[in-house]
Amino acid sequence: MAEAVETMDGWYCLHDLRTIDWSSWKLASDEERQSALKEFEELLTDWEATEKNRGGSHAVYTIVGQKADLISMVLRPTMKELQEIETTFNKSKLAEYTKPVYSYVSIVELSKYMTKEGENPEENPEVQARLKPVLPKWNHICFYPMDKRRQGDDNWYMLPMKDRQKLMYEHGRTGRKYAGKIRQIITGSMGLDDWEWSVTLFAHDALDIKRLVYEMRFDEVTARYGEFGPFYVGNILKKDEIETYFSI
Amino acid sequence: MAEAVETMDGWYCLHDLRTIDWSSWKLASDEERQSALKEFEELLTDWEATEKNRGGSHAVYTIVGQKADLISMVLRPTMKELQEIETTFNKSKLAEYTKPVYSYVSIVELSKYMTKEGENPEENPEVQARLKPVLPKWNHICFYPMDKRRQGDDNWYMLPMKDRQKLMYEHGRTGRKYAGKIRQIITGSMGLDDWEWSVTLFAHDALDIKRLVYEMRFDEVTARYGEFGPFYVGNILKKDEIETYFSI
Amino acid sequence: MAEAVETMDGWYCLHDLRTIDWSSWKLASDEERQSALKEFEELLTDWEATEKNRGGSHAVYTIVGQKADLISMVLRPTMKELQEIETTFNKSKLAEYTKPVYSYVSIVELSKYMTKEGENPEENPEVQARLKPVLPKWNHICFYPMDKRRQGDDNWYMLPMKDRQKLMYEHGRTGRKYAGKIRQIITGSMGLDDWEWSVTLFAHDALDIKRLVYEMRFDEVTARYGEFGPFYVGNILKKDEIETYFSI
Amino acid sequence: MAEAVETMDGWYCLHDLRTIDWSSWKLASDEERQSALKEFEELLTDWEATEKNRGGSHAVYTIVGQKADLISMVLRPTMKELQEIETTFNKSKLAEYTKPVYSYVSIVELSKYMTKEGENPEENPEVQARLKPVLPKWNHICFYPMDKRRQGDDNWYMLPMKDRQKLMYEHGRTGRKYAGKIRQIITGSMGLDDWEWSVTLFAHDALDIKRLVYEMRFDEVTARYGEFGPFYVGNILKKDEIETYFSI
Amino acid sequence: MAEAVETMDGWYCLHDLRTIDWSSWKLASDEERQSALKEFEELLTDWEATEKNRGGSHAVYTIVGQKADLISMVLRPTMKELQEIETTFNKSKLAEYTKPVYSYVSIVELSKYMTKEGENPEENPEVQARLKPVLPKWNHICFYPMDKRRQGDDNWYMLPMKDRQKLMYEHGRTGRKYAGKIRQIITGSMGLDDWEWSVTLFAHDALDIKRLVYEMRFDEVTARYGEFGPFYVGNILKKDEIETYFSI
Repeated sequence: MAEAVETMDGWYCLHDLRTIDWSSWKLASDEERQSALKEFEELLTDWEATEKNRGGSHAVYTIVGQKADLISMVLRPTMKELQEIETTFNKSKLAEYTKPVYSYVSIVELSKYMTKEGENPEENPEVQARLKPVLPKWNHICFYPMDKRRQGDDNWYMLPMKDRQKLMYEHGRTGRKYAGKIRQIITGSMGLDDWEWSVTLFAHDALDIKRLVYEMRFDEVTARYGEFGPFYVGNILKKDEIETYFSI
Repeated sequence: MAEAVETMDGWYCLHDLRTIDWSSWKLASDEERQSALKEFEELLTDWEATEKNRGGSHAVYTIVGQKADLISMVLRPTMKELQEIETTFNKSKLAEYTKPVYSYVSIVELSKYMTKEGENPEENPEVQARLKPVLPKWNHICFYPMDKRRQGDDNWYMLPMKDRQKLMYEHGRTGRKYAGKIRQIITGSMGLDDWEWSVTLFAHDALDIKRLVYEMRFDEVTARYGEFGPFYVGNILKKDEIETYFSI
Repeated sequence: MAEAVETMDGWYCLHDLRTIDWSSWKLASDEERQSALKEFEELLTDWEATEKNRGGSHAVYTIVGQKADLISMVLRPTMKELQEIETTFNKSKLAEYTKPVYSYVSIVELSKYMTKEGENPEENPEVQARLKPVLPKWNHICFYPMDKRRQGDDNWYMLPMKDRQKLMYEHGRTGRKYAGKIRQIITGSMGLDDWEWSVTLFAHDALDIKRLVYEMRFDEVTARYGEFGPFYVGNILKKDEIETYFSI
Repeated sequence: MAEAVETMDGWYCLHDLRTIDWSSWKLASDEERQSALKEFEELLTDWEATEKNRGGSHAVYTIVGQKADLISMVLRPTMKELQEIETTFNKSKLAEYTKPVYSYVSIVELSKYMTKEGENPEENPEVQARLKPVLPKWNHICFYPMDKRRQGDDNWYMLPMKDRQKLMYEHGRTGRKYAGKIRQIITGSMGLDDWEWSVTLFAHDALDIKRLVYEMRFDEVTARYGEFGPFYVGNILKKDEIETYFSI
Repeated sequence: MAEAVETMDGWYCLHDLRTIDWSSWKLASDEERQSALKEFEELLTDWEATEKNRGGSHAVYTIVGQKADLISMVLRPTMKELQEIETTFNKSKLAEYTKPVYSYVSIVELSKYMTKEGENPEENPEVQARLKPVLPKWNHICFYPMDKRRQGDDNWYMLPMKDRQKLMYEHGRTGRKYAGKIRQIITGSMGLDDWEWSVTLFAHDALDIKRLVYEMRFDEVTARYGEFGPFYVGNILKKDEIETYFSI
């Protein structure tokens, strides 16, 4: 039995991807469309107030390609709040013109692989800030779920802690090269959703997303142990761009 | 041919996940909505009477994320009763505003891996209580189906009984750490549904679900032999919260 | 090149699973519903006549869980007849209120693994009866398709005949323990459908289905070589229960 | 780098599977139905003229089971013609009452594994006839796509030419046992569709399809290297049976 | 940790596949159809202007078989522009008569495997032209996504750079045989979509697509490390053929 490294857990997280039914959106009257957008913007205003009060955080982006049109990523202290946010949107006017595509339930997570001896990372204020982060409002987002492989000789969960630590350390070094260019949020989802983790990357330049993911693929921890779900990539949708985005 | 350990079998179990079609729910008249909810609440009242009379048990939760909106888990002495419950709901008014998402047919099961020599666990009243359990009404639920792997060198069903016993014993030790925090119901489903077992976890704190599943992933029995289906996680929906949940 | 054991082939077989669209069924008028059920019952009466005349056999069950509502299993001497039966149902009134879910095309099959030397099993009247069986009308059904694995060292089709015979013999011994409790129909489907065989179990007690499938999983032929498709389990739907089942 | 054996390529091939929406077909007026069938029969008359002029060939069968109702297999000298045939059907009246199910794009192909030294098979008139075949109008059809496996030690494309030749020769011997009973058309589809080849079998007796596919499964080339997609099996639909098939 | 070879990145790329809903297209009035096509042709005229000004490039083809009816491949300097193009189409009249099928987000990419020492390929004008290409308007297109395998002993990302270089060099040699016959555009998509790369082939003769893909399958880099997604193949749709293609 391999020793499990403990994790530190922060806010609950819901990724929610929707596609717009443009045909029925066009069939709606100007009035209906205006009232749907107004209600949606009020929802965002509520979320902004929560973020300001450090009661959570969120990000809203459009998705490139047919997989989805919109992604929202919302962080809150409890799973109950996530569900209320989802149900509120489901009952909203705009929801009638969208179709669910994919969602992901997880918790912001930091592993203790890098913990120095004698240190309690949970008392570290910087760690606390990373567990309850304010999501950046950078140009681009990339979201994907992932597993660590358990197959034949490539079984992450059978590796001794030391080996896992070494592989994670190397991997972290690749990530640190992109400091300031990529902001990475790791969320854990064992018992909460179908994959073990989700990764959300924020970038100023979309090319850095490709470069980071490409470079990391050659890290042994990814090459031998990384299993990936679908990738969603998109552009920021600022509140004052919503009208334009939905105008027809 | 490896020796099969016998199982003890209790009540039949149906997990039933549905999603709400909010758009048509909103199109319904107030009257239709009220009558649909009333009928649903009467159904739950019937289930409560059955539970009181020890004729079965049930749990109703909302699901977080887009996978589903509602999950019900119902235990009954026969498969015939499960089907009647399902058909009754299908014919109900509320069903017209929901869409089926996923279901799972199984039987509450205890393995005899831990049986002491000379003991007949079937005569143990505590065992009997666990085979026909009253489902807890705790804050959170987590439901997922699973298999034991049969792949190359990782073939559970080719392991000698002794090895299986040892691995299950270690695994049980991890579970016991969460006593009082997590209540776990194992149901067997070979011949009844697409996976070999389903696991339902009840928790006061959703974080304990993630912690338990995470810690168990490092148990050899999971690391080498566990194959998992979709995970569904949710919050309890008490009978007096139904009106609010469905109000628009 | 491993030696293929010959098979004996009997009647063609069509499993047909449908789900009921309860919402549109409720929208139909009483008259439409009555005429749809009457036509369906006449269809069943025709099938019964064919069965009586030894021109085929059939079984109709309801399915537990959301996978399907109804399963019919029909045996006939030719594939042409199977298709006509399917098309006749598709054109029927009741079909308008159902949606196709899954179907399976195969042929009742017996392998010659157990043939004694000097014997021609095809001349054995018991064998002939098993190739053109009258399907039992027992309480429960379990249907699933399956393959024999061809993966790395676990390749059934590369095993010498002798080894296959030995494994099948052991497997048969497990099955014989359930004589009188479980009736098993094996149908072969190479070239006819997506899996290599389908298994249909009939049982008085649903628990015996779980017990048999569980116990067989530890047979080496299953542990190392069995690959399974979806499992469908249900309760018998007698002709005089149809009115009640469909009543709303 | 293993040596690729060259292929000889003939006509382009489109398999097209559709299901009939019987509910809307019944809603159509007699007149609409008659005009839809008349247009479809004229399409078939055009195809027959092309076949007569050696400009292509075709086959139309009904499919048994819920996977599809109709399959057409059309051969033409260019991919452009295949697409025009497809678009013509899509614009036809009958298409409004059908739903697409599956299609497959490929090219009639013969491998040169069996070429005798000093021979140029492309000059062989029999080879030319097989590359531009007149499809038989036998009772039954079986269509499935397939790959050659590339997995671990079972990697077809890493085998020396000699080994591949030997395995293909043995395989061909199994096929030749069914001469006169089964007519087999192999089409290659690398770069054209999702599998590497498709196989279409025509048979007088459907049982021969099962027997051939079963027996071949024990050929080493299949046992170790064959990966199969979905199987579709059906009965011939002669032009003068169309009225009856569609009558309601 | 294997050394990652650097890539050179050019224009962003969106493949967009749609199917036409012929039934609703036929229900539209002549006027609606004309105005939908006019708007679509104006969109293409805009794209042509962009291509002329070297601000991007595009290709429009019809797809053979039921997978899709139309594919567009659009190259632009930013991901923002790709999304705007997609949203503009989604809001267009023609979009109401189409359904999304598949899309792919990537970036034109050249690897530096072949870089000569002392050379900086980024300064090479030919390289620059290949990173921002004008897409050919040849008769046929073939598009498919792909991965490099990471499985057991066949793990591309664990190979030393030298071995990867050797395998890629051999592979390139196969490709060069088709110079003038096949134009190949490689786009990288790690972090952007579900596969690692996409390949788009343009050909005068569709048979060359099959020949190239077939021959390459025997290259060790493909045989051992290539994993392929769906293949889409089609014929060019010239602007002046649009009216005919959509006429009913």
